[in-house]
Amino acid sequence: MDLVYLDHMSLNPILPEVRKAMADALNQEWGNPSSQHRLGEKAAEAIANARQSVADLIGARFPREVVFTSCGTESVNQAIKGTAWARQDKGNHIVTTNIEHNAVIRSLRRLKQMGFSVTSVPVDKLGRVNPATVARAIRPETILVSVMHANNEIGTIEPVEEIARVCREKKVPLHVDAVDSMGHVPINVEELGADLVSFAANPFYGPTGVGGLYIRRGTTVWPLLDGGVQENRNRAGTENLLGIIGMGAAAAAASRDLEKRMAHARSLRDLLLAKLPEYVEEFVVNGDPDNCLPYLASVSVRHLEGESVMLMLDEEGVEVSTRSACASGSLRASHVLLSTGMEFADAQGTLVVTFGPGNTEADVFRFLETLGSAVKTLLEISPLYKK
Amino acid sequence: MDLVYLDHMSLNPILPEVRKAMADALNQEWGNPSSQHRLGEKAAEAIANARQSVADLIGARFPREVVFTSCGTESVNQAIKGTAWARQDKGNHIVTTNIEHNAVIRSLRRLKQMGFSVTSVPVDKLGRVNPATVARAIRPETILVSVMHANNEIGTIEPVEEIARVCREKKVPLHVDAVDSMGHVPINVEELGADLVSFAANPFYGPTGVGGLYIRRGTTVWPLLDGGVQENRNRAGTENLLGIIGMGAAAAAASRDLEKRMAHARSLRDLLLAKLPEYVEEFVVNGDPDNCLPYLASVSVRHLEGESVMLMLDEEGVEVSTRSACASGSLRASHVLLSTGMEFADAQGTLVVTFGPGNTEADVFRFLETLGSAVKTLLEISPLYKK
Repeated sequence: MDLVYLDHMSLNPILPEVRKAMADALNQEWGNPSSQHRLGEKAAEAIANARQSVADLIGARFPREVVFTSCGTESVNQAIKGTAWARQDKGNHIVTTNIEHNAVIRSLRRLKQMGFSVTSVPVDKLGRVNPATVARAIRPETILVSVMHANNEIGTIEPVEEIARVCREKKVPLHVDAVDSMGHVPINVEELGADLVSFAANPFYGPTGVGGLYIRRGTTVWPLLDGGVQENRNRAGTENLLGIIGMGAAAAAASRDLEKRMAHARSLRDLLLAKLPEYVEEFVVNGDPDNCLPYLASVSVRHLEGESVMLMLDEEGVEVSTRSACASGSLRASHVLLSTGMEFADAQGTLVVTFGPGNTEADVFRFLETLGSAVKTLLEISPLYKK
Repeated sequence: MDLVYLDHMSLNPILPEVRKAMADALNQEWGNPSSQHRLGEKAAEAIANARQSVADLIGARFPREVVFTSCGTESVNQAIKGTAWARQDKGNHIVTTNIEHNAVIRSLRRLKQMGFSVTSVPVDKLGRVNPATVARAIRPETILVSVMHANNEIGTIEPVEEIARVCREKKVPLHVDAVDSMGHVPINVEELGADLVSFAANPFYGPTGVGGLYIRRGTTVWPLLDGGVQENRNRAGTENLLGIIGMGAAAAAASRDLEKRMAHARSLRDLLLAKLPEYVEEFVVNGDPDNCLPYLASVSVRHLEGESVMLMLDEEGVEVSTRSACASGSLRASHVLLSTGMEFADAQGTLVVTFGPGNTEADVFRFLETLGSAVKTLLEISPLYKK
């Protein structure tokens, strides 16, 4: 049975060229990039090249504004906690939104345990944050605003540029969690106007175990990892050379292929949504149709639990997700969907379909057919439906 | 010119079998180990196997006591800061020693900025911590003791078992930084008696970018990275699958080869120290000769700067270190050597030679000959010597 993989949000395959760059690196001898002899210089140069590729992808003016971390979660934790600690003499209040990723939510929950206070602003039914609401939430003691670039469950892209203007006016640094959009939609940190931007390599087909944090020059953030002088003193620890080389290759590929990727993903998404009514009767498409991640379709099938549908699809070799892998194993309804005003029952029935470069129209039809018969079977035994 | 690499403390080559395990992993498709479908299960199984190999190496009773991190520095930061934050209702005092690694020193410096207080105990001239001194430093408000297992500049192995008995008696958790000794000398966390043990994969010939933290069951430590539920909720973030597989393979090799490695390294170290007087007249061998890392020889050449010697050796293709790579670039004398009571001038002249499995007796002689002529040349121009 051929596998149809439509869970790219949860894990992406590594691009062949990234794999090759990493395999080559694995077969070489390297020194410690922070040591002073020749092997170390070669490693330092490889890291500098990767940093340049990432800086190019995100439009950073200075490569040293890019800090390599171990994952998107680390980037987010450093951006949020590092800013809160560094600025605690200026205030203890942070503004965020109701639809953030667990890394943001739990970093903030941790800060609350340490005496910080948090205001979380609502979103509308399309999952959009209103910049005016952010403006009203900012107080004199606000030291950070954290907003995601695009939501990983419904795909809505937030009006970050406008929020950044608000923050700049009020002189509050802005952190943007761009983990799920970097490499999939154009992001230029200068145009975005954010002071801190978190991202990771795997979402744009690099390896897991490596991420990046953009820190605009002049922004004060404490490192999360204290120790050596690596990463321009922004992140201690011996560098993950293999991962960084992989991330550099993935960033170069993303810069080159961005338009093509967007067009490909969008065509599959459009096909899925156009054909869906032929296979499933009652459903809701989530997110903002005018402003969304091209590779993600979030569909709530009514009267069913997404978890059951997902497991039935899995048995047929079709892999999709119900929500973020970081939150999987939990049967609670998504806080994101509930935030958009969706009923609890409908929120339970949500599937998140995410496309990658290897997917084809045939995959979409295989998904639709499998979904159609899974929904039919499940509706026959659904207590929600019988009512 | 053949390179003679004697700077394994700064970076180790990856073992061929580790490289192979990683290359195989790189060529497979994996799912997200925290997702619920089949590809995810395969990845979760690979991580479980690696965790078992690491647990076996360190003698952990339960594999889940092993948490994978991104490096030794992260492990140390989580052990120290995570314990301090989790126990801050019980007190704000931490005990450490004068010869710790930068990751420990700077984690503690950061905690001091946050209101914690630190007592650092001295060492004797062999670099040994006296357990009775640790006992005297512990106060009712002490919430953590942090001591390194073996020092990375002079090789002294500390009496950790005795310090652990002191800590247990006083009901204070003990963190042991074993980054430079794990895989090189036998370490069994049960016999050691520590509650937290930090280590990393590269020091035992695994990849960089992956480390481990042993957290004894029942020990309360806050995660450094908050977010998803990975690593039994001890460390959020998508797993570095490739790195973890590499660390597992390196741990299995270390368990198998430990005795052989120790004998090999010890023979080269003994040879170097036995022959050294034939090449250099005035020098001091640092550390505790009776209790030291077998792969490390720390030698202070009198009247010279180690940095100059190191760079001359580098020109001749012989790579050694003056001190931790994390602190390289700094011309200050080592805090470790000064703590042993060494004169500033002698501390400046220190070379750290570290052996790996690929080194041979011929490497030792090549080092000695190159060192002999470098020292001769440098002494001729040394102002310290002319005095």
